[in-house]
Amino acid sequence: MPEVAPDADPDRRVVPVQQAVLGKNDAMAAALRADFRSRGLGVVNLLSSPGSGKTALLVRTLEELRPHRRAGVIVGDLATDNDAVRLRATGAPVVQVTTGTVCHLDAAMVARAAAELGLDGLDLLFIENVGNLVCPASYDLGEGLRVALLSVTEGEDKPLKYPKAFRTSHAAVLTKMDLAEAVGFDREAAVANIRNVAPEATILEVSARTGLGMAGWCAYLASHVATRRT
Amino acid sequence: MPEVAPDADPDRRVVPVQQAVLGKNDAMAAALRADFRSRGLGVVNLLSSPGSGKTALLVRTLEELRPHRRAGVIVGDLATDNDAVRLRATGAPVVQVTTGTVCHLDAAMVARAAAELGLDGLDLLFIENVGNLVCPASYDLGEGLRVALLSVTEGEDKPLKYPKAFRTSHAAVLTKMDLAEAVGFDREAAVANIRNVAPEATILEVSARTGLGMAGWCAYLASHVATRRT
Repeated sequence: MPEVAPDADPDRRVVPVQQAVLGKNDAMAAALRADFRSRGLGVVNLLSSPGSGKTALLVRTLEELRPHRRAGVIVGDLATDNDAVRLRATGAPVVQVTTGTVCHLDAAMVARAAAELGLDGLDLLFIENVGNLVCPASYDLGEGLRVALLSVTEGEDKPLKYPKAFRTSHAAVLTKMDLAEAVGFDREAAVANIRNVAPEATILEVSARTGLGMAGWCAYLASHVATRRT
Repeated sequence: MPEVAPDADPDRRVVPVQQAVLGKNDAMAAALRADFRSRGLGVVNLLSSPGSGKTALLVRTLEELRPHRRAGVIVGDLATDNDAVRLRATGAPVVQVTTGTVCHLDAAMVARAAAELGLDGLDLLFIENVGNLVCPASYDLGEGLRVALLSVTEGEDKPLKYPKAFRTSHAAVLTKMDLAEAVGFDREAAVANIRNVAPEATILEVSARTGLGMAGWCAYLASHVATRRT
């Protein structure tokens, strides 16, 4: 078995650099937050695993909000503009951030994308993060609301296994509820696990396919915007 | 909108440090690979999103292999030992690596865990990576086979959106095939997308719940072990 040499370990140099990156990100995020607030703009950062239904939820949300709220979207992906194409079909303005190998969005990416999108006249800005329950949790994007999605097909223990994503979120949204019975989803266990890591989080249940829970989710978003304007 | 200052950017210091980390990891992985090979040990690194069914597939695989092959498991998670508990119930030796905030396993973690597990007498070593389709793709663990899982509930476009995980894998396994009809899974599109980024990859389809495709998957693993012994 090869020995692990603890000396001359480049890993040791990662921590201070990461702290500097996160410190810079936090400062940029604070400036963004102040700017968003001064505009009365509600900004929502959506986090989840790949395939939990962020884009499907957003498409349906944009359709339901359209008569009442003007919403824009920044969408992050390592590769492809599939999600941006789906989102643009709703008529909402969308800017895609292609991250290549980077596993999360950061505040500087959001600042550039927001400048490209143009925020004037918007009530809401959705940020669809890279599909990843780990790295995005460490990057403040200046959002007013952070929302972690958990699809019923992923297993009820994911909040315990990826605690930071849920602990740092204002709301946890259970998605694909129309599949709950088919996959034997244990709703009580999932809620208990979310409560365990994020006792204060608002918990919502939706199906973007059937529309279940969309009214409650949109009301939650509307109340966030109303709060921003006071 | 806050300006993005390109100067004095700590991000710029990340790349050389990451390269040093990856270079060190590659060296450690090469040493591990030589050690595994000298033992005739087949080592399989499983990558996927959270909740794609790595543990469920492994539990069923360990049960089916048990009469014929001696297999051990190294399992990575940010938090909880839920998966290790499930895997140990099969009777296989299991070592858990708790990564905290680290979004992937690396070769040094595997070297330590392998020493703890003990490799004497094993035919196969499974490494269940952290649930993440981004970061684990960059870390060679000395494995002989890298396998990326895609559950039918995640959406057919994930190979295009997370290309490195699939491009660097020897096999792509479509999991939860028992749910394919319920979720309207487009098998042809998924296969075409895998082929697009990983033309040489072996594609397998399984359901750990019903047992569909398990014989083919176990035969694939057995042929890998047989190859190692020659």
